[in-house]
Amino acid sequence: MTAVIFPRLALIGIGLIGGSIALASRRAGAAGHIAVSTRTPETLRRAEALALGDSFHLDPAEAVKDADCVIVSVPVGASGAVAEAIGPFLKAGAIVSDVGSVKHSVVRQMAPFIPAGVHFVPAHPVAGTEQSGPEAGFAELFDNRWCILTPPPETDREAVATLAAFWGALGANVETMSPEHHDLVLAITSHVPHLIAYNIVGTAAHLEEVTQSEVMKFSAGGFRDFTRIAASDPTMWRDVFLHNKDAVLEMLGRFNEDLTALQRAIRYGEGDKLFELFTRTRAIRRGIVAAGQETATADFGRRPGAIPGSPPATPKKGS
Amino acid sequence: MTAVIFPRLALIGIGLIGGSIALASRRAGAAGHIAVSTRTPETLRRAEALALGDSFHLDPAEAVKDADCVIVSVPVGASGAVAEAIGPFLKAGAIVSDVGSVKHSVVRQMAPFIPAGVHFVPAHPVAGTEQSGPEAGFAELFDNRWCILTPPPETDREAVATLAAFWGALGANVETMSPEHHDLVLAITSHVPHLIAYNIVGTAAHLEEVTQSEVMKFSAGGFRDFTRIAASDPTMWRDVFLHNKDAVLEMLGRFNEDLTALQRAIRYGEGDKLFELFTRTRAIRRGIVAAGQETATADFGRRPGAIPGSPPATPKKGS
Repeated sequence: MTAVIFPRLALIGIGLIGGSIALASRRAGAAGHIAVSTRTPETLRRAEALALGDSFHLDPAEAVKDADCVIVSVPVGASGAVAEAIGPFLKAGAIVSDVGSVKHSVVRQMAPFIPAGVHFVPAHPVAGTEQSGPEAGFAELFDNRWCILTPPPETDREAVATLAAFWGALGANVETMSPEHHDLVLAITSHVPHLIAYNIVGTAAHLEEVTQSEVMKFSAGGFRDFTRIAASDPTMWRDVFLHNKDAVLEMLGRFNEDLTALQRAIRYGEGDKLFELFTRTRAIRRGIVAAGQETATADFGRRPGAIPGSPPATPKKGS
Repeated sequence: MTAVIFPRLALIGIGLIGGSIALASRRAGAAGHIAVSTRTPETLRRAEALALGDSFHLDPAEAVKDADCVIVSVPVGASGAVAEAIGPFLKAGAIVSDVGSVKHSVVRQMAPFIPAGVHFVPAHPVAGTEQSGPEAGFAELFDNRWCILTPPPETDREAVATLAAFWGALGANVETMSPEHHDLVLAITSHVPHLIAYNIVGTAAHLEEVTQSEVMKFSAGGFRDFTRIAASDPTMWRDVFLHNKDAVLEMLGRFNEDLTALQRAIRYGEGDKLFELFTRTRAIRRGIVAAGQETATADFGRRPGAIPGSPPATPKKGS
């Protein structure tokens, strides 16, 4: 147990990320009272049933009252509206943060509504699963993952250090960079991968020559990995692409350029070029495993029956 | 234990797939003597150390002598040369099969060398991991996966049924289709997914604005899933693209068309189009999970420490 960092923590939005912050805070003892607010009565009821907080509010203004830290975990397109709603009710000296996958847009949307004397420290924990909603949260989500803080240069240093300590208590490693650099890094490590995963699943879904049943049956050849990513929350991801347009289009341009070169190598039978790339990419994976960001287990340890929730082995035929 | 289907089974090539066939055959009792042959003395020694067979041969002609079934598990570009080497030594009535991820090219390469009286039944078990070599094999690899047979119309029905029973004994479900249709189905469910995974990992590797260290640290945002696929065997995959060129280029053309439309939707801020696609793709994943081809476990069950080989949770800071 760490010392309590925030006697009162307000969570605005209580899906996969908000819910996991609640559970990880409890695990670490990093927060005292947790006030939870979300937009719909139904989600609020579910969060209450899961005991994700100590008080539950449909009105975010009520949740942030007296809070030492407010973390906004909503689709990035809703950041500005939330900031506007809570701005007048924030306590002097409070820290306001978020978890958005895009930072430049969030800063632009929220900053105008943060009153003087309140510390705005945007953040992005790079962690998640393809599931969404309060039930999807779990206390270990941030363990050994990275949380990126993007405070404007003039931000109070102590507020940044306090939020960094909070994320450390939740299990995360913390790094600081500018919102612009964040958006470029995430465009290639997260946004474009999601876009091409959504895209190939879409392409496969409306072929005439190959049935959907065939796509599903024979998905173990690689396709199924893409469907995990393409099962992520549609609202969240729509907002990511709309709000990180420039960096996504820039990285997508490079992806396309490289893909065109590969396509050409296939057309002209240039096996050496393919082999050279396919060898180089292995090194990147080794680096990711070494960095503790991935399991080295073959096929994600997805042998039938090997992990909870995996499909059982089929009864042997002819036995 | 099933009855012995092949008193003598010859495995030409003993990597991930050949090794798994050996282990799954033993588990099912589906083969009597297993003769193993591979090109390099070093791999043969490793296969022998793993006890993947009963006899070990550098000369494939020796391995196939008296074999009731010969399964060739080599990169598809080497299929023709292997068929030429073993053709004259095949027993009358024997079944010759393979495991190649491309079927039309394999048929074209191997068929001319299969003597009359020997049954050629091409096959493709749609299963694998990103690892390669004899040590990568395991007995459960084919459990509840699909094995596609692509016998020419004139093939002896009994031979096809026998090979189907063998794959059933190894845990697989069996389906039959034409080599051309197989190549189209696999182009979208396996080959293009691999190509775009290799491609994005390549793109990420040579950016100037984002360091390789950043790509690795922040890979949990989606990128790391692609690196698994992009860690697959380079020789195998070079051959797949060179030998399934037409179907891959066709499916890649559709992928590109769809990606251009998505890119345009992002540029013009058409959120509805993005949301509609991102919602549709979720249904495909549900279908794959329902078809038993994927685990429903969030993030592949990759919570820190939750599965063997996964990175441990980091020590909590500030605790």
